[in-house]
Amino acid sequence: MKSPRIQPMNVGILGSGQLGWMMILEGRKLGNRFYILADEPGPAARVADVCLPVRDYEKFVDLCDVVTPEFEHVDLRALEYAHRQGKLFPPLESVVLKTDRSREKRFLRDHGFPIPDFQVARDAAEALALAKRMGRAVIKESRGGYDGKGQTYVGVGPGAAAPLRPAPSYVVEEYVDFDGEASIIASRDAQGRKLFHPPSSNENLEGILLRSEAPHADLGMRDIASRLLDALGYVGVLAVEFFLVDGKALINEFAPRVHNSGHHTLHGSSISQFEQHLRVITGLPVPEPVLFRPSGIVNAVGVEVDRRMQEKLLKVPETRTYSYGKSGLRKRRKMGHVNVTASSRQELTARIREVTRVLYGGDPLPCFLP
Amino acid sequence: MKSPRIQPMNVGILGSGQLGWMMILEGRKLGNRFYILADEPGPAARVADVCLPVRDYEKFVDLCDVVTPEFEHVDLRALEYAHRQGKLFPPLESVVLKTDRSREKRFLRDHGFPIPDFQVARDAAEALALAKRMGRAVIKESRGGYDGKGQTYVGVGPGAAAPLRPAPSYVVEEYVDFDGEASIIASRDAQGRKLFHPPSSNENLEGILLRSEAPHADLGMRDIASRLLDALGYVGVLAVEFFLVDGKALINEFAPRVHNSGHHTLHGSSISQFEQHLRVITGLPVPEPVLFRPSGIVNAVGVEVDRRMQEKLLKVPETRTYSYGKSGLRKRRKMGHVNVTASSRQELTARIREVTRVLYGGDPLPCFLP
Repeated sequence: MKSPRIQPMNVGILGSGQLGWMMILEGRKLGNRFYILADEPGPAARVADVCLPVRDYEKFVDLCDVVTPEFEHVDLRALEYAHRQGKLFPPLESVVLKTDRSREKRFLRDHGFPIPDFQVARDAAEALALAKRMGRAVIKESRGGYDGKGQTYVGVGPGAAAPLRPAPSYVVEEYVDFDGEASIIASRDAQGRKLFHPPSSNENLEGILLRSEAPHADLGMRDIASRLLDALGYVGVLAVEFFLVDGKALINEFAPRVHNSGHHTLHGSSISQFEQHLRVITGLPVPEPVLFRPSGIVNAVGVEVDRRMQEKLLKVPETRTYSYGKSGLRKRRKMGHVNVTASSRQELTARIREVTRVLYGGDPLPCFLP
Repeated sequence: MKSPRIQPMNVGILGSGQLGWMMILEGRKLGNRFYILADEPGPAARVADVCLPVRDYEKFVDLCDVVTPEFEHVDLRALEYAHRQGKLFPPLESVVLKTDRSREKRFLRDHGFPIPDFQVARDAAEALALAKRMGRAVIKESRGGYDGKGQTYVGVGPGAAAPLRPAPSYVVEEYVDFDGEASIIASRDAQGRKLFHPPSSNENLEGILLRSEAPHADLGMRDIASRLLDALGYVGVLAVEFFLVDGKALINEFAPRVHNSGHHTLHGSSISQFEQHLRVITGLPVPEPVLFRPSGIVNAVGVEVDRRMQEKLLKVPETRTYSYGKSGLRKRRKMGHVNVTASSRQELTARIREVTRVLYGGDPLPCFLP
């Protein structure tokens, strides 16, 4: 009875979106306190203990035991200060690589990972010339893009490519005519021990995840993710996204954080990606994840998961609706998602399709982004 | 895109303990706002949107769309005011019955439910005389007792019965030499539709739940709970606790709320008791619960689930630690619990025992309450 009270940890999250929101909701059971650094308080700020503006990043880092980003495009000074204090997880390089696609791509190529061919262009004219030489290509702005923003397809589909927005540099990437997309949620702890959730198949539309389903056949993804975790000297949860071509997996990109394609781990798995990340970065044990039941999600993009929608969605068996509570509905904005589980992969796919129909009012591909 | 935004609901919780805390954590995904009415802010107040003192009960009820207790011994004025406003779930009578054991017992007997024999005594001398006539009996104060408080055994075990504390009346109950204890988490919606989680077996020590494991054979519990839900005109989640004797189930008591023996539904089930209660009282659909995987819990009674303890507990596969963050450690106080899942009932029992050993440092029964 007289044992000393061991204090819970103060966990600092850089960013205030739905990833931080779910990290806090999943992490409360561990008894930690949660701090948010963000100028525009989003979903995470509403459930955090403390929210500080970005200008107070030093105070924020000093108050926290560990600091982790929920988004790559966060203030670099905060990342670097947390790094210097030995509090940043995952390591600085893995986050900074993601601020410039050309660095990410070079890192992957230099370490021998399977990726589509690419070249770096310094201006729009060079990018277009390189793309035309490749035949079919995607031109991506090196900095700032996510969820399909800042991307232009050349030689793919009908019509001419849209004019490029001015940018300091571009990555021109061979267009991969993939059979499918998939991703894996992996983690590595400070002792180098690695763990993997079973991969999920993903369907993206215009660069935004529409839905994912787990499990998916491995096709070498676990091995690639394992090598990437080591190459990055990583500590925390890492998401790796793949193109699947002829039964082989090519890395599309990685995310040095919890990831939308890992939301299925919230239900039907022995541990969610969010709790896993928190346990790893605070030094708590994480046994091998177990998938209890085929699990997937459907994103609500540009659609409110309000009460009227919930009434329809929750009639589908084994669904749980997540409403992020964002203040403004926008066309390409993720407003929430729906978790789905089922007794078989086939039943899961049927339920996922039903949820998609309820959310978007019909077949998703034509109506997804009107 | 122009659809009107349907507001989330304001859910009022009477009480601020761990049951309210978990209800809020589980309910955030639905987008509701949570209000707490309590004078001593506990775990639930730390994660609520608003916390009001009991004297402001009218303002509290007026602000909320629905009101629900997380504890029976809450302010009667608040219950009655919420009832008059048509906002109280479950119905007033089911909560008020629990403020007096003699009323609860008479209700169950009058409705023909299987319960142990009992009689009501108006003073201590009468209670002791009735108990001696029964041979083996439990004398319970009619009001205020929970977690084994206010109970005295007569003719059970060695030594004389402890002297009774003065009380306005007592329930004298035949001592049931049970083979085991079990409970079921049931719910009924406003349309009278009823749903059931599979029952769990429970082990109590000195009136406090030590651990529970699901599933357990039904033995008629589902049918009894179904009739009780109807008899109470119930809306919400109801927990019914049973003694098991010779393959039959006798009601020990019911709890008109989410319940400690239902915490196993947090992991390994398609829906937790907390989300189920919220969905039912706010009028959202609840499909039939599915148990994915044998699931159980071990309570941390008088033991902190601090970081040092978490480091040991989380090494056991498929465990999740819940630290309630209460401010003071006391001998009989529930400080947290551990959820456990496993691939079989046998593996679950082994893991539950291992978790008990880690929490209490040995065989639980001698060391549970030192």
